[in-house]
Amino acid sequence: MKAEIITIGTEILIGQTIDTNSAWLGRVFSDVGIEVQRITTVPDSSKAIVDSLKNIFHDTKWVIITGGLGPTNDDITKKVLTDYFDDELVYRPEIYTHIENLFKKMGKLPNMLNKDQAYFPKSAICLENSLGTAQAMLWERDKKSYISMPGVPFEMKAITNDYILPRMSSVQDILLEHRYFLIQGIPESDLALRLYDWERNLPKQIALAYLPSPGLVKLRLTCKGFLRDTSELLKELDNHSIILRGILGNDIFTEDIRGMEYLVSDLLRKAGETLSTAESFTGGSLSAKLTSVEGASDVFKGSVIAYSNEIKISDLNVDRDELLINGAVTRLVATQMANGIKKKYSSDWSIATTGYTGASSDSDNPSGTVWLAISGPGIEWSKKYFMGPGRERITSKSCLAVLNQLRIFLKAKTR
Amino acid sequence: MKAEIITIGTEILIGQTIDTNSAWLGRVFSDVGIEVQRITTVPDSSKAIVDSLKNIFHDTKWVIITGGLGPTNDDITKKVLTDYFDDELVYRPEIYTHIENLFKKMGKLPNMLNKDQAYFPKSAICLENSLGTAQAMLWERDKKSYISMPGVPFEMKAITNDYILPRMSSVQDILLEHRYFLIQGIPESDLALRLYDWERNLPKQIALAYLPSPGLVKLRLTCKGFLRDTSELLKELDNHSIILRGILGNDIFTEDIRGMEYLVSDLLRKAGETLSTAESFTGGSLSAKLTSVEGASDVFKGSVIAYSNEIKISDLNVDRDELLINGAVTRLVATQMANGIKKKYSSDWSIATTGYTGASSDSDNPSGTVWLAISGPGIEWSKKYFMGPGRERITSKSCLAVLNQLRIFLKAKTR
Repeated sequence: MKAEIITIGTEILIGQTIDTNSAWLGRVFSDVGIEVQRITTVPDSSKAIVDSLKNIFHDTKWVIITGGLGPTNDDITKKVLTDYFDDELVYRPEIYTHIENLFKKMGKLPNMLNKDQAYFPKSAICLENSLGTAQAMLWERDKKSYISMPGVPFEMKAITNDYILPRMSSVQDILLEHRYFLIQGIPESDLALRLYDWERNLPKQIALAYLPSPGLVKLRLTCKGFLRDTSELLKELDNHSIILRGILGNDIFTEDIRGMEYLVSDLLRKAGETLSTAESFTGGSLSAKLTSVEGASDVFKGSVIAYSNEIKISDLNVDRDELLINGAVTRLVATQMANGIKKKYSSDWSIATTGYTGASSDSDNPSGTVWLAISGPGIEWSKKYFMGPGRERITSKSCLAVLNQLRIFLKAKTR
Repeated sequence: MKAEIITIGTEILIGQTIDTNSAWLGRVFSDVGIEVQRITTVPDSSKAIVDSLKNIFHDTKWVIITGGLGPTNDDITKKVLTDYFDDELVYRPEIYTHIENLFKKMGKLPNMLNKDQAYFPKSAICLENSLGTAQAMLWERDKKSYISMPGVPFEMKAITNDYILPRMSSVQDILLEHRYFLIQGIPESDLALRLYDWERNLPKQIALAYLPSPGLVKLRLTCKGFLRDTSELLKELDNHSIILRGILGNDIFTEDIRGMEYLVSDLLRKAGETLSTAESFTGGSLSAKLTSVEGASDVFKGSVIAYSNEIKISDLNVDRDELLINGAVTRLVATQMANGIKKKYSSDWSIATTGYTGASSDSDNPSGTVWLAISGPGIEWSKKYFMGPGRERITSKSCLAVLNQLRIFLKAKTR
């Protein structure tokens, strides 16, 4: 069964907001076997919204509309949809009570604009938004379900989880199943060449996609067919997964889509070991990644962000002469940072990063030159990389490279 | 003049990739007065791509297509567009030389899949991609310009800056000008009520939009009209900006769209002062924000990410008994962390964060309870907040709240 997403908001078209809602919806719909066949983003304009509704593909069953339901004047979605469906707004006291209760929790009172939010289209079903003042609307028309939700991400997610996914699952007849294979530090075209023969001969119900991002390629193997053929389809997907693993071997670092920081976290937890980091150019991004994992405090002790040389010397015991003579981006500095933080925070493992990302680089060490180091039980590792251009890109590629190296060490120990 | 963006990539529809390209394009187009009237995201499927091209609005002048130009089998955009425009692919030796040179820089040789990338549609103009192997294509058809670019963000940005924006600017007759007013910590509906009368009476060439995100509302005031009326339009925009400032006063913390970390960075640089941070639950996000500003090392000394209590005690001089008796989320702990890091790193200012974001909370201190502290010359500030649900949301709201408080102190000093 197919869905389309219509995102309403001028702020997205002029680039003031990045549309993360559609990606999230695409992922959870895909998990219940619903294929999003198009995302259309339109401004807060009556004509544009109506145009997009008229344009819906005939084989779309679910029309998911987000945005434009706030209390302010530029939020016109409710009115436009109500007109489009020849409906009318009526006051619903129970919605107003809900809004009042929400404000009460914050120690406030609703204002007149919030009162307008208690008007609701007569023939629509109300999908309660427990976290916000704008309620979601569902219209059934011409065998399609039209759902309009607020664009606030955490409200949109709650409504989707509570009402939309259960409805979708209950009427589904298509199997859509994905497997992921993550590879770090190998270019997309090299992978494609190694997979060339196998990929050419894939049966039509199985498809391969390459999803590259800085330093990482995700391979997605998808099978699609009718739910009644589930067991054969999954067997075929399993068989091709085995072939893929055979071709790429250890270059696949995980099949877990959550990403490298979860993997490292799990391995540390299993080993009962801890980690600390000493960051220079990554400036806290590595720690932020590691602490974004729920329960990080079990394995992550802490970090020193040593952005200045004095801190490298005083806190991490880096050699002052080395910094003066050879600068902050050397093997010795990276190694001393890693050893310094490991000792200081009594962790089992440590990671250090030092590199050039901006204007302070020179011809011998162009921007993108980094040294990464790891220190652990009986292990001292360090390596120089050239990560190419772009401050943000250098940081993400470096975090990924050094976390993958730590993963390899942790994995080797548990074998 | 109007543009549409067509984003090609199944990975976006199933939510494995967030489309950040379209937001960036929307922003830079808007800066040169081009209005993006729709973004359409479609899968890597020939039918879907052709459908989206057939659907282009008649008043769209620029059709900007990104994605699907890589070297692998699932990248079909070049072939589909070549067929759609009745064109044919011919081998261009100069493109192959460019590809060879790119590989040489990385100490590698191109493979046979890269050789295919040197085939280029005969009647298209080549917009050179100096950073990658897939060249951009430009077709002029029926008074529309169709441009197809790779989806790799830094390649796409370079091509846009080098070729597309100059072309757009040279044929433009519409003025589209935005002003921004950023407000921290005040709900959208409260702002809307304060602006109600003024907003209702705005002339039709001036529009106001509310762009809320966790802890922040951006107000965007836009004027639109013909280039020949530029001076009157800008005068009207200026006048309404003055009224808006009059209504909201000091609640507008900046009109600089780059965000809070740039503002704090600038103020510190002007004052010749430095900052350090001690982070618990924010886990490095605050440092990462601060160091994402180019030249951060002039004003940012470093940070201790004190995820464990031992580090709070040993590195930041937090009282062991307080931690034992009252836990890590108290005014005293936040204040001691701020004072500890300021002294340790000899910075003029410091920020500390401590709070509950996950499972470890209790009924007195639900998840979302945080203490934020600032220490500076003659200043010691701390405050308890309740930031609501969501790990990521709590972190961004807290970073914003404490950076804004620091900004207020810095600003007050320079008056």
